[in-house]
Amino acid sequence: MIDLDELKFDNGLIPAIAQDNETGEVLMFAYMNREALEKTIETGIMHYWSRSRQKLWKKGESSGHLQTVKELLVDCDMDVLLAKIEQEGGACHKGYRSCFYRNIEGEVVGEKMFNPEDVY
Amino acid sequence: MIDLDELKFDNGLIPAIAQDNETGEVLMFAYMNREALEKTIETGIMHYWSRSRQKLWKKGESSGHLQTVKELLVDCDMDVLLAKIEQEGGACHKGYRSCFYRNIEGEVVGEKMFNPEDVY
Repeated sequence: MIDLDELKFDNGLIPAIAQDNETGEVLMFAYMNREALEKTIETGIMHYWSRSRQKLWKKGESSGHLQTVKELLVDCDMDVLLAKIEQEGGACHKGYRSCFYRNIEGEVVGEKMFNPEDVY
Repeated sequence: MIDLDELKFDNGLIPAIAQDNETGEVLMFAYMNREALEKTIETGIMHYWSRSRQKLWKKGESSGHLQTVKELLVDCDMDVLLAKIEQEGGACHKGYRSCFYRNIEGEVVGEKMFNPEDVY
C-alpha cells in the first residue's frame, strides 16, 4: 500500500479522474482531499471534496448515481489519481453519462442518460 | 466552435487529461494555459503549460514522444479538457506508456516503453 503521506496534495487537494472500468470512457474530473480519499479507500465508493460547497461529497448521494471503485491508480509524480469505476446511471449533473459530452466544436457527442430535473 | 473565452481558466490554467484515442488508456494529466490551448488547436499537437519550468511545453519536443490530437472535449462546467490523442512512444517521463502505471497498493501495472536515460 502506498503511504498516503507520500501523495502530494496541493492546498489540501489532489485531482481525481474517474474512468469507466469497462468501456474506458472518462466520466468526470474532480478533487479529493485526504478525508475523501480515505473514505473512498475505506468504503470502495468514490468520495470527493466539493469546492463549491466546501464539504465532503459522496458522489451520487442524492441522485443514486454512485461510483464503485474497481482500481485506484496514482501517477508518476504522486499528485494525480485515476479511479477505474463502475458508474450507476450518469456521472454528469447535466444528465449525460460523461461530463465530457461536448467537443471543442460545440457539438454534443455524449450519451444522455436522465433528465436532471427528475433527479436533483 | 466553442468560444475559448467561455472556458474557465483557474489562475490562468485549465486541467487537461490525455487519453489514448484507440485503447482508451488515460496517459497523462497536465495543465494548459490559453496560449498552450491555442497552439494545440492550431497545430493539432498537444501543448501544455509546464508549472515546474513556467513555460510553454510542447509535449515530446525533446523525447520525440509527440501527442497528436484526434478529438478535444470540454466538460459540463467548461473548466476541464479531455484530449483523445495518438501517442508516440510513452507519455510518462519515467518510461511508461501511461503516467498512471502504479496502483494504490504500490504495484506496477503499466507497460514500460523505454529507458528514460536513453531519451532525456
